[in-house]
This record gives sequence, structure tokens and C-alpha cells, in this order.
Amino acid sequence: MRYKIVLSYDGTPFCGWQSQPNGQSIQDAVERAAERLFGERTSVVGSGRTDAGVHALGQVAHFDCDKVLPPKNVTGGLNAYLPREIRVSDAQYADSGFDARKSAKRKTYMYLAYVGSELPVLNDRAVCVGRDFDTQAVSAALGSLIGEHDFSTFMAAGGGAKTFTRTVYAARIERDGMFIKFYITANGFLYNMVRIITAQLFKIGSGQKTDLSALMEKRDRAYAKELAPACGLYLHDVEYEVTD
Amino acid sequence: MRYKIVLSYDGTPFCGWQSQPNGQSIQDAVERAAERLFGERTSVVGSGRTDAGVHALGQVAHFDCDKVLPPKNVTGGLNAYLPREIRVSDAQYADSGFDARKSAKRKTYMYLAYVGSELPVLNDRAVCVGRDFDTQAVSAALGSLIGEHDFSTFMAAGGGAKTFTRTVYAARIERDGMFIKFYITANGFLYNMVRIITAQLFKIGSGQKTDLSALMEKRDRAYAKELAPACGLYLHDVEYEVTD
Repeated sequence: MRYKIVLSYDGTPFCGWQSQPNGQSIQDAVERAAERLFGERTSVVGSGRTDAGVHALGQVAHFDCDKVLPPKNVTGGLNAYLPREIRVSDAQYADSGFDARKSAKRKTYMYLAYVGSELPVLNDRAVCVGRDFDTQAVSAALGSLIGEHDFSTFMAAGGGAKTFTRTVYAARIERDGMFIKFYITANGFLYNMVRIITAQLFKIGSGQKTDLSALMEKRDRAYAKELAPACGLYLHDVEYEVTD
Repeated sequence: MRYKIVLSYDGTPFCGWQSQPNGQSIQDAVERAAERLFGERTSVVGSGRTDAGVHALGQVAHFDCDKVLPPKNVTGGLNAYLPREIRVSDAQYADSGFDARKSAKRKTYMYLAYVGSELPVLNDRAVCVGRDFDTQAVSAALGSLIGEHDFSTFMAAGGGAKTFTRTVYAARIERDGMFIKFYITANGFLYNMVRIITAQLFKIGSGQKTDLSALMEKRDRAYAKELAPACGLYLHDVEYEVTD
């Protein structure tokens, strides 16, 4: 049986999604919990990797087990064995053709910032920006990201991507009380793409003139070296075909 | 010179505000930072104690030091020596008659809850409640807290209070996206008063009939034994006379 699960995690104590020899990844933790629940070893395939310190609200993964358990028992059982920094919010049976990574059509990342004095309860969860942060300027700049573009300016080395063109369906900034939330939805993301773009948005919001279109045309990371901290980044949700 | 400081902290790793022999309190951490900055030992007096795991957005404290430093150097200097879970957002010179505890006129506590699936990034910071939480019912119940009352029903043993009458100036519930925030402003609070009241509000919000006025008339904790978790509670701000 193939299971599809939706996960939320606090990425702070983990070395990222991807399995590591030290076993300190989120994937490792989920595989250990699944082995305890089902009594079988299995590989858990996520919709994509998240870096060390990056959080998820709606990461999606799949895995296969011979044993068939009711979905709500999978949710409850995995949560019983998972560390409290990882919670399964939903589990479903999936078609054998469903692949959490390959079937994903759209992913949305959120970057969380806040204005005002530094608040320790938001340590490792959001980034503090100046009180005069210019949300309007960022909103105006975001339009240039929409559509199909070569995003190699906004790609860190080491991601292993073979093509650099991605389609951004939506990009917006939302002011919500003291919080500023950036959302980017695309059919896929290059390595560190959201954090590199967010670093440019931080420059625009703090009054620097930065032309995202001109940067994209360079197709060269040398023009966008900054990287926003991992701790403000959230994998918000992953969308699949309606037929899933 | 007497200094007045405003502090924000993540209470998770501390045993509360009040100095303890093990040195793991917030007061201990601030006194150590002040000693390093001023080269003098001093006692830091907070507006009141917060329990282990309780947070603060605007705790106020005072201390005396012979050395006179510009206020902004006090803010920066203390932050340089404080652990990252404690931040000073403001420092000012205070009149010698100013006392962070005795001069406080009004304090506001916030209790933070959220609806939906459990989110690990909110662990130790907020409490998850059911999706059908009845904000309207809580809002209607809050009115009975307003005014001068004997709050001994809502007091845990061990606080050392000699009088049990307090005046609640404001009590409201606010729905903010997935968050539910309870605010209570009073001239003072009995030991665990906000957490005991919040536990009753949780019952009301989840459909149980609970009459806060009738409970108050009992003047007996036996009628309100529940205690909401410390991690959802925030000391929001402390108000003093305008002449401060």
C-alpha cells in the first residue's frame, strides 16, 4: 500500500529534509517512526528537500508498506513515534502512480518577517526587519517574477538541476499586523531560489534600488550573492493534480 | 543612577523570572549581564514574577548602578551580554522614586491559542484548540470579569497575596487569522490568575457551560482547578503613571 502524508515541522533541530549518515534529518525521523508503526523498513519520499533550519507547514511525502492500516491510525501512530518537532496532519491511501516529488504540480513557499524590536519568541522562526520596511516597493517588484523565466541568477551551486527555467504562478507580499509574509508559488524551485530572491526583496524593502528583471537577465549568481536566513522560510503547501 | 528597562523574552529555557539558587532565571541572567556591563553587582527588580515557560513582550524592570551610561549603550550593552532568549528593547534613566513593581498601575497579559492542526513551530509558544472554538461565547463571558472582584477562586496556593481583590479594566478575545488572543488588563494579578481564568475560557470556547460570575462568588479554587499551560501566556505590557 502506498501512503501519502502531510507533514508540518520545526526545522530548527534538524539538518534538513534529506536523509543523512548521522540520522538527524526529518526524512530519517519519519522513516524511523514508520518502521516502528508498520514493523517494516521503508523509504519516505518528500515533495522536495528543505534545508537545515527551514520549516514546513504542509510538506507532502509518500511511502510504501505491505501492512494496511486505516489512515487515521497512520496519522496517530506516526505522531506517537515522531519527535514533537514533526507532526503528521493527514494521511491517505495513494494510487501506486502517485509520487510526492514527481507528481507535484505547484509548490508555495512563505517567508516570514516582522517589524519592530527583536522578539525572542520568534527566534529561529522569523526575521526582524526595520520599521520603515517598504511593503509597497516589494509588491511592485514581485510582478517581474511572474511567468516562465531562467532563474539561474537566483540559484546556489550544488542543487543538481539540469534546467534553470521555472514558472512562477504567483508572488505576493502581505502585511499582517507586525508580520510581513512573502509567498511564491511555482512549478518548481532551484536550489536556494526563494532565499536568494527574498534577500533581494529585503534590499528593495529597505530602500535599495534593485531590478529583479535585470538581475534575472544576467543568469549569474554573482549578481545576487545574498542569502536570506533559513529560519524565516516555510514550505507552505504542495499541490497535485485534482485526480490524486 | 536608577535605570528602567523594557524586556522581551522566550520563557521556555528559564525557571521563571524570580532569581533561583541554580541561576537559571531571567532575573539572574539580567543581573549577570548588568554586572558585566557596569562592573557592579546590582539587584534587578521586575514588575512582577513570571512562571517557568511564560513569555514576555514588554516586561519592565529597574536597577541601580553608580556608573552612568547613555541609555542606548545600556540597551546595546545588556543585549551583548544577554542570552538570545532575552532582549532589552528600551532603557531609560528613571526617577529614584520609580519602582518597577510598586509603581506599576496596570498590567496586560495575553494568552495565545490557535485553531487547526498542531504546528510544531508554535510548540512552547501557543496552545492548539479545536476548529469549532466558540469565540463569541468566550467574548460574552469575559464581561463578568470586568471591575473590582475578589478573585480568590482564580488563585493558586503559594502566591503570598494578602488581599484577593483586584480590578480588571479590560478583558477581550480577538480572532486574528488562525490565532485566538485573550487579553486581560488589571491593576494586579493573583498567583496563576490568568492561567486559571484561561482554562475556564477554554472550557467555554469548547462548548461547556461555565459561569465565571458564579465561580467568582465561590471564592474557592476547588471550583476552578484547571490551569492553562504556561507556554501560551505572555506578559504583554506594564503601564505606569504618566509622570514616570
